[in-house]
Amino acid sequence: MDERETNGVDPGRRAVLAAGGLALAATVMPSSARAIDSARTYRRIACEEGFLSPGVLAQNARTHIAGVPLITAAGPAARLARPLLDIGEGRIAAMDADGIDMQLLMLSSPGIQIFDADTALSLAAESNDIVSDACARHPTRLAALAAVAPQNPAAAARELARAMKLPGMKGAIINSHTGGEYLDNPKFWGIFEALEALNVPLYLHPREPVGGMRDIMAGPVVGGAAWAYGVEVGTHILRLIQAGVFDRFPKLRIVIGHMGEAIPFWLPRIDGRFAAANRRMVGGARKIQRMPSDYVRQNIWVTTSGMNNWPQLEMTLKVLGSDRILYATDYPFEDQAEAVLAVESMPLSNEQKKYLFQDNAKNLFDV
Amino acid sequence: MDERETNGVDPGRRAVLAAGGLALAATVMPSSARAIDSARTYRRIACEEGFLSPGVLAQNARTHIAGVPLITAAGPAARLARPLLDIGEGRIAAMDADGIDMQLLMLSSPGIQIFDADTALSLAAESNDIVSDACARHPTRLAALAAVAPQNPAAAARELARAMKLPGMKGAIINSHTGGEYLDNPKFWGIFEALEALNVPLYLHPREPVGGMRDIMAGPVVGGAAWAYGVEVGTHILRLIQAGVFDRFPKLRIVIGHMGEAIPFWLPRIDGRFAAANRRMVGGARKIQRMPSDYVRQNIWVTTSGMNNWPQLEMTLKVLGSDRILYATDYPFEDQAEAVLAVESMPLSNEQKKYLFQDNAKNLFDV
Repeated sequence: MDERETNGVDPGRRAVLAAGGLALAATVMPSSARAIDSARTYRRIACEEGFLSPGVLAQNARTHIAGVPLITAAGPAARLARPLLDIGEGRIAAMDADGIDMQLLMLSSPGIQIFDADTALSLAAESNDIVSDACARHPTRLAALAAVAPQNPAAAARELARAMKLPGMKGAIINSHTGGEYLDNPKFWGIFEALEALNVPLYLHPREPVGGMRDIMAGPVVGGAAWAYGVEVGTHILRLIQAGVFDRFPKLRIVIGHMGEAIPFWLPRIDGRFAAANRRMVGGARKIQRMPSDYVRQNIWVTTSGMNNWPQLEMTLKVLGSDRILYATDYPFEDQAEAVLAVESMPLSNEQKKYLFQDNAKNLFDV
Repeated sequence: MDERETNGVDPGRRAVLAAGGLALAATVMPSSARAIDSARTYRRIACEEGFLSPGVLAQNARTHIAGVPLITAAGPAARLARPLLDIGEGRIAAMDADGIDMQLLMLSSPGIQIFDADTALSLAAESNDIVSDACARHPTRLAALAAVAPQNPAAAARELARAMKLPGMKGAIINSHTGGEYLDNPKFWGIFEALEALNVPLYLHPREPVGGMRDIMAGPVVGGAAWAYGVEVGTHILRLIQAGVFDRFPKLRIVIGHMGEAIPFWLPRIDGRFAAANRRMVGGARKIQRMPSDYVRQNIWVTTSGMNNWPQLEMTLKVLGSDRILYATDYPFEDQAEAVLAVESMPLSNEQKKYLFQDNAKNLFDV
């Protein structure tokens, strides 16, 4: 089953968004994102926006993995193929219509991580070249992250270094686990080394959990983007902290979507139980140098993708601060105009909106 | 490894709590929970408080399950055995000292769910009798939930019916999965039938996830109460919704701890992706009658246990409403006085505190 969705709008979705701010928007905001542009003092930069290269789309059609939904030109998610493939005029027109000034593009999940290593490396390079070309044609409207294939960590690091010399390329995208292995495994740390050396961030994006966990988290309420994806990435980030990745790579910057994949919600409890576990260790020796929340506040940024709800954003602002949260739509899986209106209707100051929509993205991604 | 902890206080834990309200408490609140009692217009009822029966403690010592920490009289968590066994004068004195008027007691996780069915049934009955005796001796200070053994669902329903006739018994406690099976399996639904017929709530408490998931979520940052427990119970609740449990048992009331195990954080996204998944189904047919959030708002209550932090409580109040959130300490794993001070120091109205500490517990548990 495919957990993805087009940018269509139905009453249920409208009601959901209303609970997060659109009710307010309906009464105090004009009905289109463009209409509120005249007063803006910031650009709107969207930082988790999907695309597909023709090569990956074709390879998806040749690939079947139980429980892993893949977008193909003829499958159940075929209507997503067109907006994902379009990183030219059609996309720019949609951004114009919806009030988005810049999209940070990333190869749609699970990207090349499900293919064999050689195919993955080849398709990573192809898609990086294609998306960089699009950025070069629209340098003020598009930027991108480079797909890298953790199946071959050394080659991934080389491809990252190559891609960062191309126009518009601002970092890397990895869709959580690769073949059931997480990036806390030191065999992958050459990728972190390259990210630090190149001084670019990594976007850690969801995909379906590993087999045993995926079986437990299946279906329209528990599975996919409803719940399982967030558990997958949240778990992955905490595994990186636990393994000492940020002690070894203190300048590593990792971005996660969906308002931080519930980590802001759990952060005080994570610290509290971590401290409790350490008090019980012989000699009080900790395997990592600082508290988990220190690494989150030092090394992790979050985007709003798909979580355009004020109570959740308010909490995250209070836990992480205005300088750690970036706007993202998750186009074309989420409705761009709805997302902009939802966030614009929130009780944020103009300064906070400027951070959220523009400044944090500029600082983090150099866009 | 044992993820539990005593009620000791260290600087790290103090700092964590400070971030959630104790900084405020230090400046505007008296330094002890008792000192603020004079102005109170509500009793403080704590709704997720642990105890152990001597029989379960002894059986724990005869039981070993890889990765599942058990409290024994001589093991690494031995210092917890004494406060857990004491449901008499020692506990009442601790409650007096810490400003707690009533504890709702429940057999400490994983309770009897790890034993063979016959042992589990026998120890459930023993511990229910023991805790009811304690309630009878302190009827204004103690109430309790009945341990039931899902290993034998029919017998569990019978034990529940028997226990509800005993003094002070107000519902049931189940610690998430039993032998890797969740309560969405219809073989367990006789327990839900009994809960509905008896008109008492079920507390769905964490335990270690099932094997494959537990392996992924192990260690002091990812495992146990830091992260894995919340994933386990949150997943369990969503599985119940997805399976139509609340369509079949519309009056079933389930209580979960830890500020709702991140479900309030994810709720709009769960609805949104559920709606998206349903739009793709042939004919638009849904397997459940309502939106996931409808069931959460109709059938689920949450407690604060171990999550005494204002940004998280504020979000949960906005998402679920003041009438759905109950105070809990998680004694003796969390510090009772710290928890009371943290919550008392939050910017809540007296009316909100009355709901949180007293009225919601009275309405839900008839205490």
